[in-house]
Amino acid sequence: MGKKIIAVTMGDPAGVGAEVIVKAVHQLTGKLTAGFLIIGDQRFLLKAVESCKLPLRIATVNSVEEAEFQQGVLTVLDLNNADPKLISYGHISTAAGQAAYQYVEKAIQLALTREVAAVVTAPLNKAALNQAGYHYSGHTEIFASLTNTSDYAMMLVEDSLRIIHVSTHVALRKACDLVTKERVFQVIRLAVEAGKLLGLPRIRIGVAGLNPHSGEGGLFGDEEIREIIPAIERAAKEGFDVEGPLPPDTIYVKAKNGLFDFVIAMYHDQGHIPLKLVGFSFEEGRINISGVNVTLGLPIIRTSVDHGTAFDQAGKGTASPDSMVNAIELAVLMAGAKKGS
Amino acid sequence: MGKKIIAVTMGDPAGVGAEVIVKAVHQLTGKLTAGFLIIGDQRFLLKAVESCKLPLRIATVNSVEEAEFQQGVLTVLDLNNADPKLISYGHISTAAGQAAYQYVEKAIQLALTREVAAVVTAPLNKAALNQAGYHYSGHTEIFASLTNTSDYAMMLVEDSLRIIHVSTHVALRKACDLVTKERVFQVIRLAVEAGKLLGLPRIRIGVAGLNPHSGEGGLFGDEEIREIIPAIERAAKEGFDVEGPLPPDTIYVKAKNGLFDFVIAMYHDQGHIPLKLVGFSFEEGRINISGVNVTLGLPIIRTSVDHGTAFDQAGKGTASPDSMVNAIELAVLMAGAKKGS
Repeated sequence: MGKKIIAVTMGDPAGVGAEVIVKAVHQLTGKLTAGFLIIGDQRFLLKAVESCKLPLRIATVNSVEEAEFQQGVLTVLDLNNADPKLISYGHISTAAGQAAYQYVEKAIQLALTREVAAVVTAPLNKAALNQAGYHYSGHTEIFASLTNTSDYAMMLVEDSLRIIHVSTHVALRKACDLVTKERVFQVIRLAVEAGKLLGLPRIRIGVAGLNPHSGEGGLFGDEEIREIIPAIERAAKEGFDVEGPLPPDTIYVKAKNGLFDFVIAMYHDQGHIPLKLVGFSFEEGRINISGVNVTLGLPIIRTSVDHGTAFDQAGKGTASPDSMVNAIELAVLMAGAKKGS
Repeated sequence: MGKKIIAVTMGDPAGVGAEVIVKAVHQLTGKLTAGFLIIGDQRFLLKAVESCKLPLRIATVNSVEEAEFQQGVLTVLDLNNADPKLISYGHISTAAGQAAYQYVEKAIQLALTREVAAVVTAPLNKAALNQAGYHYSGHTEIFASLTNTSDYAMMLVEDSLRIIHVSTHVALRKACDLVTKERVFQVIRLAVEAGKLLGLPRIRIGVAGLNPHSGEGGLFGDEEIREIIPAIERAAKEGFDVEGPLPPDTIYVKAKNGLFDFVIAMYHDQGHIPLKLVGFSFEEGRINISGVNVTLGLPIIRTSVDHGTAFDQAGKGTASPDSMVNAIELAVLMAGAKKGS
């Protein structure tokens, strides 16, 4: 058996995707026992290599079998779909939305047939995607749809802080409705599966409440009593190491300090606020992001950068590859541990 | 005119209140041009001095006029209401709830008559308070009630991060209802007033959204469009330096990095999660809190520690006074700048 192959999609060509990929691959060359197959367009990757002034050359392949993954070489499955005449940095276009979708579609196909062990995605632009006729609210929904998955969850990772969300892109009122005992239990189970994939020695799960002070015994909301506590009790019966519901304003402090391996967040911002506060840094007036976004529950492994296309920075060679480096490392780790791969 | 007098209430005698006060006063002696009048019971303060092994003696007074505030001396307005035979560390009791309420009541009285320039509160225990017949959900509600105030807001402060809450101790569903244009505008105005009290050169206010990504143009909830944006527009018309609604998961990163002087948080945990993550530290398995809680909108100045009675630590001399030190310093600062005092 050869080395694991990780597919890395280029994202929207008008964004920083190609740039963070070439920087990350350069940085990781020789450090990981995996081959990186970039799914994109060699023209934008070449522009990125030039703007970043990296000593890399490009080898295009037509199939996974052809790939050789030599040092100093970017191995590209070139879909030849990003025409620089139609796509310019920092601009929303149908062509770029179309291209970005095709990279993801191809990567999912290769992952489902086990030709690649995992998929890492660079950012796409939702407006461009929609303009090209793909009406998804993001990558995650494309992955769910193309792999026919209904029970998935978004995990954000920053060092040892791992946060899994009961819901994400819905109104806060709707998010309250989505806190059900079935869903909370499901997300706890996804945490356990993720812990196994990551090879953690222990899988200690902290479950946040929904309401301030976790409702203070029903005084400020009863979702903890009606939904969250029954889910936790069921999880404990299954033998999972689970604690909660804990007050939302202190559980992340505890997790950051090593008391939990996973936190179950009840809604988008409950998990995103602490993750971004821990994982972002501020450099030269810009927010720099190092976190990783993982979709749990899919039949394939998928990690992603936790930042957007950064159209204002695109093409300048200045974007930080930290999040991409972390996303690739996490994909390699999860691919190595996954059973049957 | 003599020096400013700051009243410091002892809180629940069974908690760490007395201890953090004696440590804080000791630490601040000679550093601030203010006199600290402790409103409590000398017996518990003496026990605290002993358990903390501090070189302090106690001088009791019957009125503010008698107070001399000498170095090395704790000046105590002794209400003589905490009988050590009825109250023991770490235990909820009617006697302790009664005593804690009386300290606060007395402090508010002195502040309303301008005998003291500000009130700083040590933590009380809500169960004990209720057992004693005072049915408030906390200090803030006592202050509002006894000063006849309806338009107030909770501000949490940690260094330069200042977060003011549109609502606090209500269910999350109810918190969504409380995001109205009137209330959001009112809280923005309270931020402006606080900025003046603090003597800030600029008062840059960031307003968070309620929904993920601030609703993404109405896609995930429309409170931003219906309520928050009109409030911001009204505030801008009044000449306030206000920006928003900004996505809840990045506004705190920006504020932490100095882009705003105040953040308006739409609900309890939206503000408490980032504040506590920034302000807490973890020492010997315990969460250590340094933040300060301020009630804005009252006719008097009131700051407070941002931690509870810590019954498990009470009486041991080990509690950290960081939050109390910061609360006192902030009260002194606000009292100095307040007009007419």
